[in-house]
Amino acid sequence: MQNKDLVLGMDIGGTKTAFGFVDCQGTIYGAHTMTTQSGQSAHDFMARLYARIEEAREALTFAYRLCGIGIGAPNAHHDRGTIEKAVNLNWGDTVDFVALVKAYYNLPIAITNDANAAALGEMLFGHARGMKHFMVITLGTGLGSGIVTDGRLLYGASGFAGELGHTVVEPDGRLCGCGKRGCLEAYVSAAGLKTTALELMVGCRDQTKLGDMPNEDITAKQIFDLAMKGDAIALEAFDRTARILGMKLADAVAHLSPEAIFLSGGLSEAGDLLRIPAQKHMNHFMFGAYQDTVKLRPSGLETGASAVMGAAALIWNDLA
Amino acid sequence: MQNKDLVLGMDIGGTKTAFGFVDCQGTIYGAHTMTTQSGQSAHDFMARLYARIEEAREALTFAYRLCGIGIGAPNAHHDRGTIEKAVNLNWGDTVDFVALVKAYYNLPIAITNDANAAALGEMLFGHARGMKHFMVITLGTGLGSGIVTDGRLLYGASGFAGELGHTVVEPDGRLCGCGKRGCLEAYVSAAGLKTTALELMVGCRDQTKLGDMPNEDITAKQIFDLAMKGDAIALEAFDRTARILGMKLADAVAHLSPEAIFLSGGLSEAGDLLRIPAQKHMNHFMFGAYQDTVKLRPSGLETGASAVMGAAALIWNDLA
Repeated sequence: MQNKDLVLGMDIGGTKTAFGFVDCQGTIYGAHTMTTQSGQSAHDFMARLYARIEEAREALTFAYRLCGIGIGAPNAHHDRGTIEKAVNLNWGDTVDFVALVKAYYNLPIAITNDANAAALGEMLFGHARGMKHFMVITLGTGLGSGIVTDGRLLYGASGFAGELGHTVVEPDGRLCGCGKRGCLEAYVSAAGLKTTALELMVGCRDQTKLGDMPNEDITAKQIFDLAMKGDAIALEAFDRTARILGMKLADAVAHLSPEAIFLSGGLSEAGDLLRIPAQKHMNHFMFGAYQDTVKLRPSGLETGASAVMGAAALIWNDLA
Repeated sequence: MQNKDLVLGMDIGGTKTAFGFVDCQGTIYGAHTMTTQSGQSAHDFMARLYARIEEAREALTFAYRLCGIGIGAPNAHHDRGTIEKAVNLNWGDTVDFVALVKAYYNLPIAITNDANAAALGEMLFGHARGMKHFMVITLGTGLGSGIVTDGRLLYGASGFAGELGHTVVEPDGRLCGCGKRGCLEAYVSAAGLKTTALELMVGCRDQTKLGDMPNEDITAKQIFDLAMKGDAIALEAFDRTARILGMKLADAVAHLSPEAIFLSGGLSEAGDLLRIPAQKHMNHFMFGAYQDTVKLRPSGLETGASAVMGAAALIWNDLA
C-alpha cells in the first residue's frame, strides 16, 4: 500500500499549542495538545514541541510520508516567516519561527496568523470549498479575521491585512488590549461580551442571575447559559454584541463583497444566539447592492480541530 | 510612420459625459464633454454620443488605430457589462450598456464604475505605478472607492466590492441618498461638508461669513475659500470631515492593508486642508501593525482628465 501523505499542522496559542497530522481530506491523526509556557524562550519551546511531535509520529500506526509543516500563530508574518510582537507569547519583538522549525525539519514550512489559517482551513476542508471571496471571523478571547479574495488569502502591503478586531466602533470607547480605544474586539469577544453584561448590570444586579456571583467570576459561557434560560440582561448583552458585530460586518461587506462570512471560535458556539441577530443587524446596515448576496454562516469545521486543520491547509493549498 | 494605438475612454456621469482618445502613456487626444441629458433613454444617449465620437475622430490630425473602448459609469457591473439602478441616469433597473456600444463598434469594450476606473488610471498613469495594494477615494458629490489587491481591481462576489461611501459612521445618523442612515458619504462629500457647516452654524451664524448667504446658496467651494481665509466655522467643518474620513480610512486599512490611499475628485482639491488632518486622524485610529506602512496621498492625475484616463486604462490594462 502507498504511504499516506500527511502535513503537520500546528496551532500556537498564548496558553495551549495543538498539533496533528492532517491528510488531504482534512482528517487529523495523532492530535496532541501541550501547554505553551509562554515564559519559556521560543528556542526552548521549539525543543519541547519537537520531542512531543516525534513521540506522536512514532505512535502513528500506518506508513506515511510527511510533506510539510503549516503553522498558525498570533502575529505571524507569512512572507517573513516570523512571529512579531505577540503579546501573549513574550517572545520579544521578532522571532524567526520558520527558521527555528527548519533546524529540526528539512521540509516545506509555512506560517500565518491563526485567523488566516482558519480561513484556509474553511476553504480546503469546510463550508468555503469552491468560494473565491469569503471571510472567517474567529470569536474567542479576541476577534480575528481571515480574508480570501479571488481565491487567495489577502495579506496586503504590510502582510497584516485583515485585522477587523481593531476597526473602530466608538472613537473614544473601551480600552483595547492593543492600546487603542473603541476597537471592535473590545466589544465583540468573550471579554467584550462580559464587559457589556457588567455595564448592563449597573444599578440592576438583582434583576439577573449574573448578579449572584462576583464580577470577576462571570464568564462568557455563564452569560450564554443564562441567556439560553431567558435571563433578560444576558439576552440584552448578546443582542448588543450581535448589533455591533452586524454593523461592522456590513462595513466589511462594503469593502470586500464576500459570498459568505463564517463565524468560528469559542464564542461562535453561542450559535444562533449571536449569529441570527448579527445577520439581521448586518442586513439592516448593508448597502442595497449587497442585499441577498452574502450569508453569515457557522464554520464547517469543529472548533477544537479547525486551527490544526487550517495550519495544515497552508501546505495543502500550496501542494494543490 | 506607424499608426498610433489609441483607446477611447468615456466617463458617463449624471450631468456630463466626457470622452477622449488615450495612448499607452496616458496622453489624451480629442477630449470632448457633452451633457448626459439623463431624461433621454440609454439608446438615444448612445446614438448622440456616437455622433460626437465620430466627429472627434475625424478631427484627429494623425494616423491612429482604435484598440478598444473603456467606460466608467455609476453602478456599472464589470462582468455583466451593465449599468444597474443608476439613480442619476434614470435608465431603469438594468441597461446592457456594453451591448449598446457594441452595436456601433466591433472592438474590445469594458465597463466598470467610475471609482474603479480612477484606481486603474492611478495604477497605469498616476502615482500607483508598481503598487500591488492601494485604494483610490473619489471625493465629489458622493464618496466612491476603487480597491486594488494583488495588482487587480477587487470586484468581490457581487461585482460591487468597494463601496466605502456606504460604510456606517453613525448607526442612526444622517439620511444618505442610498436610503440608509449614517453612511460615510453623508458626512464626507461636498454635500456632507455643507451639512456639517450648517450644523456648526446653528446658533452662531453671526460668527461666520457663511452666515451672510442663504443656506441653499452655500457650496463646498465657498466653505473651502472661507477656510483658507481662516473662518473658524469653515475650518471646523473641514476638521470634522477629515476626522471622520481618517477614522474610516483606518478601518479600510484594517481590512486591506494598502501601501497608499489616493484622494481624487473635486473635494480632494481642498488639498492639505483635508488630506493632512485626515492623515493625522487616520494614524490616530490605526492599528499598531500598520503604523508607517500606509500613506494618504493626492492623486497623480488631473481631476478633469482622470476619469477618461481611468476608463481607457480598463483596456490598456488588458492589453498589457
